[in-house]
Amino acid sequence: MPQEKPSASGEDSLIARYFKPLATDPGAFKLDDDAAALKGAGEDIVVTTDAIVEGVHFLPDDPPDTLARKALRVNLSDIAAKGATPAGFVLTLALRGADEAWLKPFAQALGEDAAHYGCPLLGGDTVSTPGPLMISITAFGRVPDGRMVHRSGARAGDRVFVTGTIGDAALGLDVLKGGPVAPALATDAAARDLLASRYRVPQPRNALALAVREHASAAMDVSDGLAGDLAKLCAASGVSAVIDVQSVPLSQPASALVARKEVGIDTLIAGGDDYELLCAIPGDRVASFTQAARRAGVAVTAIGGIIAGSSPPSFLDRQGRELALKRLSYSHF
Amino acid sequence: MPQEKPSASGEDSLIARYFKPLATDPGAFKLDDDAAALKGAGEDIVVTTDAIVEGVHFLPDDPPDTLARKALRVNLSDIAAKGATPAGFVLTLALRGADEAWLKPFAQALGEDAAHYGCPLLGGDTVSTPGPLMISITAFGRVPDGRMVHRSGARAGDRVFVTGTIGDAALGLDVLKGGPVAPALATDAAARDLLASRYRVPQPRNALALAVREHASAAMDVSDGLAGDLAKLCAASGVSAVIDVQSVPLSQPASALVARKEVGIDTLIAGGDDYELLCAIPGDRVASFTQAARRAGVAVTAIGGIIAGSSPPSFLDRQGRELALKRLSYSHF
Repeated sequence: MPQEKPSASGEDSLIARYFKPLATDPGAFKLDDDAAALKGAGEDIVVTTDAIVEGVHFLPDDPPDTLARKALRVNLSDIAAKGATPAGFVLTLALRGADEAWLKPFAQALGEDAAHYGCPLLGGDTVSTPGPLMISITAFGRVPDGRMVHRSGARAGDRVFVTGTIGDAALGLDVLKGGPVAPALATDAAARDLLASRYRVPQPRNALALAVREHASAAMDVSDGLAGDLAKLCAASGVSAVIDVQSVPLSQPASALVARKEVGIDTLIAGGDDYELLCAIPGDRVASFTQAARRAGVAVTAIGGIIAGSSPPSFLDRQGRELALKRLSYSHF
Repeated sequence: MPQEKPSASGEDSLIARYFKPLATDPGAFKLDDDAAALKGAGEDIVVTTDAIVEGVHFLPDDPPDTLARKALRVNLSDIAAKGATPAGFVLTLALRGADEAWLKPFAQALGEDAAHYGCPLLGGDTVSTPGPLMISITAFGRVPDGRMVHRSGARAGDRVFVTGTIGDAALGLDVLKGGPVAPALATDAAARDLLASRYRVPQPRNALALAVREHASAAMDVSDGLAGDLAKLCAASGVSAVIDVQSVPLSQPASALVARKEVGIDTLIAGGDDYELLCAIPGDRVASFTQAARRAGVAVTAIGGIIAGSSPPSFLDRQGRELALKRLSYSHF
């Protein structure tokens, strides 16, 4: 409670030292005001918000620099999925204390990502908590008037594309926690590192945003598992989908683990934290979309097609048999 | 971690049941998408964010309906202070579990306030936490291009105004916690209720926003204590101020407690959670500002003036002696 703690301006000086350098946008007013201002200028401001909680979305010993990147990137991924260009973000940080050894690398990495993705800090709130660390970011993007890409535009006949590879983050978390997959990678440090970094530091596909806006009928990012997120996109669009499981792009370590039956493909397509993009592309746009993706340097893979219907998407194996998914994705409650 | 908890779509159904009815703005897309869209339309979008944490900003037994109102209103207060009209908000809710007996009154009160203040829910994120409940809101307002009111515009000669009364929330918290003031109010249930409700349910002064925008050279809301917040406004403006402590508006219960020396005025002007507006008004605007405030139905009181200089504001008592403030305001760290 505000009245409890007679203290100097520790909070303000923390903000000045670590976060003011990130507030490079003129609308951030150097964090000296109560609010920021985003220019409207005839565009739509796309707004998304995602929080990560210690022990829920990240491990207590995850390094502060990767946490900063993850917290921002999970939001950047939504901005990309909506076909928008990053415009800035506000940060709410709930901390147990002002640990400068934590804050310094956190703020530095956040600043690097903010600069890299053109998404400056606009404002925020730093509060103390007796509980787990929590990082909540609301990020903004710009699209021309009415051009935000929705989940709801997919139509029968569209092809389904994903970026990058699927399932690595789920494996990375398993590795970091010493879960069932960990022993299979005991002698492969390179694979362990790759998978762990896919969990800790997502690669948001903002380079693809313009191609998504130009060509996708529907898009979202894959954050709670490909199977569940595709089901959401289909439900929002009033369609169904058939996915060829064989064509779901896997990284080399993931692919090797599947080949050795250390992990099932079902675990990978229901695993969360991919932060890849899932897009429905009308047939006559496939060629231009894949060309645009190539120019953007983002790997995209067709994994199936949208069909009419209202049943959940089917995931078919090499023999055309439907994969029985124990669950589709993650839910907090 | 997403992979840990095989679960159905409890999170989605919670959101559908309790929060979708609040998403009345077309740009919220009924919460069925990954992001919301705010129309730019040549205006500036003012962005502010404020979080409240159980055990820090509110008491564990505070009722859910008052928490909902407080979480939104502390943000609405910033929107008002910047001279902006509410445009919507996004909500991040960190919950220990999906307690519907808590969620239902929370969402209902939030919806009532959202409707009352014209500030619809645009989106959000609901996450589980093993720790304290946390409610983080990022709110948006609109001002004509470049017209956001800043902290930094106060000039020597401006009059300093505050809305409402100061110090009630600090007393209300003391009452709720059974602190030093509580015995003095043991037989006065009406005073206890008034003060507690001032702590639990701030009254943001959005009705005054247009008057602030038209007439104030600088403004902010009083959230961390009048003394400290005025010091911030002065620092941002490169000025100082002289405040006549006698003229600081007090409620009847606060005034009675001061008269009986149960509490010092210094405690009230350093107490937090007022969520009143603090404005600097140029001399030639005072009459039109006070008239506009009267029309808006918001009580405003002149409490002093801005002077040249860089020293912290002085608070002078009836005899013209400077009040020695043990502290100016609250800081989290």
